[in-house]
Amino acid sequence: MSDTERKRVSTEPYKGVRDFYPEDWAVQNHIWKACRVAVERFGFEEYNASPLEPSELYKSKTSEEIVNEQTYTFTDRGEREVTLRPEMTPTVARMIAAKRKTLYFPVRWYSIGNMFRYERPQKGRLREHYQLNVDIFGIAGIEGETEAITVAYEIMRGFGMDDKSFEIRINSRKVMNYIIGTLLGQSGEAARKTAGLIDRRAKMEKEAFSAVLSEHLGEKDALLLTLLDSKNFEEFISHLPKEKELETALAELKVLTEALSALGITNVVFDQTLMRGFDYYTGIVFEVFDKHPGNIRSLFGGGRYDNLLDTFGVERVPTVGFAMGDVTIRDVLQTYDLLPKVLPPPAELYLSAMEREYTEYVNDLAQILRRDGTRVVVDYSDGKIATKIKNADRARIPFFAVIGEIEKTSGQIKVKNLGTGKEAVLTEGNIAQFIHNANAAN
Amino acid sequence: MSDTERKRVSTEPYKGVRDFYPEDWAVQNHIWKACRVAVERFGFEEYNASPLEPSELYKSKTSEEIVNEQTYTFTDRGEREVTLRPEMTPTVARMIAAKRKTLYFPVRWYSIGNMFRYERPQKGRLREHYQLNVDIFGIAGIEGETEAITVAYEIMRGFGMDDKSFEIRINSRKVMNYIIGTLLGQSGEAARKTAGLIDRRAKMEKEAFSAVLSEHLGEKDALLLTLLDSKNFEEFISHLPKEKELETALAELKVLTEALSALGITNVVFDQTLMRGFDYYTGIVFEVFDKHPGNIRSLFGGGRYDNLLDTFGVERVPTVGFAMGDVTIRDVLQTYDLLPKVLPPPAELYLSAMEREYTEYVNDLAQILRRDGTRVVVDYSDGKIATKIKNADRARIPFFAVIGEIEKTSGQIKVKNLGTGKEAVLTEGNIAQFIHNANAAN
Repeated sequence: MSDTERKRVSTEPYKGVRDFYPEDWAVQNHIWKACRVAVERFGFEEYNASPLEPSELYKSKTSEEIVNEQTYTFTDRGEREVTLRPEMTPTVARMIAAKRKTLYFPVRWYSIGNMFRYERPQKGRLREHYQLNVDIFGIAGIEGETEAITVAYEIMRGFGMDDKSFEIRINSRKVMNYIIGTLLGQSGEAARKTAGLIDRRAKMEKEAFSAVLSEHLGEKDALLLTLLDSKNFEEFISHLPKEKELETALAELKVLTEALSALGITNVVFDQTLMRGFDYYTGIVFEVFDKHPGNIRSLFGGGRYDNLLDTFGVERVPTVGFAMGDVTIRDVLQTYDLLPKVLPPPAELYLSAMEREYTEYVNDLAQILRRDGTRVVVDYSDGKIATKIKNADRARIPFFAVIGEIEKTSGQIKVKNLGTGKEAVLTEGNIAQFIHNANAAN
Repeated sequence: MSDTERKRVSTEPYKGVRDFYPEDWAVQNHIWKACRVAVERFGFEEYNASPLEPSELYKSKTSEEIVNEQTYTFTDRGEREVTLRPEMTPTVARMIAAKRKTLYFPVRWYSIGNMFRYERPQKGRLREHYQLNVDIFGIAGIEGETEAITVAYEIMRGFGMDDKSFEIRINSRKVMNYIIGTLLGQSGEAARKTAGLIDRRAKMEKEAFSAVLSEHLGEKDALLLTLLDSKNFEEFISHLPKEKELETALAELKVLTEALSALGITNVVFDQTLMRGFDYYTGIVFEVFDKHPGNIRSLFGGGRYDNLLDTFGVERVPTVGFAMGDVTIRDVLQTYDLLPKVLPPPAELYLSAMEREYTEYVNDLAQILRRDGTRVVVDYSDGKIATKIKNADRARIPFFAVIGEIEKTSGQIKVKNLGTGKEAVLTEGNIAQFIHNANAAN
């Protein structure tokens, strides 16, 4: 088969995943840098793991169909079943369980990594996305939820989001379990279905919802409808019985709201329809919502999952955590015009030789400046100065210098600020400081 | 099936991959931070892509067996063949080919990402490893090689490696192709075998090597042996004919060595046995070697591959690049004692409440300090002060403060430096600056 007959390879990436060109990766960096700054101020440390995980890690939590239909799962040549992680929580639970005897609790960990889901590609539903995962292990009290939600709030603040643009919705799985289990007398599949209906309430027409609820619950639908229709927390609890277990759970919601309010976090609202993963959470759940008119949507969330280590057959470690995906966040920051307007320049100085014979001097000067911390791109082309300046502009580099006989002999270099057009004649040793000062002044 | 009957899930990661606990990830961060600093000073920009790639991307370059036997390749439910990338070069070539019409050349790109190979796990041979990839696209002249090797050198320097501890070996595929093709008259499989023999020469006994060479080359083995036995570049070229094509290629090696020497990079040696991937490189190849006595080994390398885009059926873009893996580098930095001795602390201040009633004040103070840029861990436990100090120590946090009635009422907080034992009484507003100054003094 000759070269010309050979099938040309496509330049398209695999279906449903993204190529990150520098301008795309800069946006990712912007997002994750804001997250890192926020979480590290709370003392969280970064961990990581391979996206390849034994499939059994997911089978324990999820039904076998979900593992096979919604994940990338395959058998390796050692007959091991491997899955590309669809979420980080089972991985971090595995790592905590493995070292629980030597870890010093409370443990505050975060990670930023890619997750894989076998989905039909569509807007916002990629087969690979990035996720920040933040977890506190070893705090049983409501201080855990308070800190986790404060971290989430500080991340939003770090992005430049205004308190009025988003809200943090909270609920309690203990309260909802009491309502579904004790008050409605449901368990297993029936309970799961009720939870699913509550979760979908906001997306359904009021009458359609009532009809489905009535069919599923019979005459008990009235109580649930009253509870779901309650306008606020006070009205909600007024319909509930005075019962110790329930009152403890309700008190947690109150204490949490007050603790956050004391920290100036006042955009917190109680939402009795907030369910999140049914088999997952054991206490407080929360979700950060974008309040953008006409596009109110969930951005990310989390909660308490104290049973996280049960699948490993080890003692429990109380845990609160949340996860945030890149796709929705990128979209919301775009909506609020909070992404950087311009791609950061690849370098500060564009350095060029007037003629090829000055390349050695140019390389040497570049090397000195780089060791002084300046980022320097060297242009090795033979073009005219006007062309070189145009090239520097296209390369988004703010300072420009060209080396010829005069510069080489005198050691006096003319550095041009391409933004202002101003020029300064500098000695080799002063260039790094000059550029540093100019950057600091901006 | 009851919970107790249920099979417990293992806490082991998938075979051949690593979990990165914070202490492990800190080492990765140390390595890649040094690389980022070095490459960004040359104006390289970061890109990334998904590890999932269409399998055809690798079939073009490699024989089908290698794709299937040494990579993770599987068929998705849309009957697409998918491979977990074993190397970054085909991906970056695909990305360049896709946008070649809108990119502004020369393009300087780097990436840090995980690669996957289906290997029997053994020391230094993991199924997943991380790799830095650095490429310059669009520079046809030797300035490209000069810059790429300078970047590699600056990375080693950034790690703290001494010039005497490593060397940069260079060779030219143009020269070797002339020797194998024109002087020995070989092509195809025979040429590939010769290249393989040259590559293995240092690992073979002198007589065994001669025997194998003689069997493969017949009476032409003498010339090759003479060339391979040459002690230096001058001796090597003295055995070669005066031929224009060859002399141009040899001149490149000379110019490169001189350009690097002018930059103070003098640990560069010519090595006529340096072959690297046979079907890959088209010009200069180089490899960085650890010179540690008793463990001389290749650390990483690269070269020129101007035919990179051929598989996409588009016009060529001259390219020089190299790749560096984490496993070998981590090992060499350990050998030379160049890894950080202690894990960086998760926070600067360990803040605690004397009694639970002061938690709100503590949270509020922590929040103020965090917004001032201080990293603060809050301890919500009920322990005694001595226990809290012990906990702060175990958490590796250098400053300690505890809030009780006196501190809350007076706003005067005693901050203890757990390293020196010294205490300072500070107002809320002075704590961030105090810790900042103490850190700057270290």
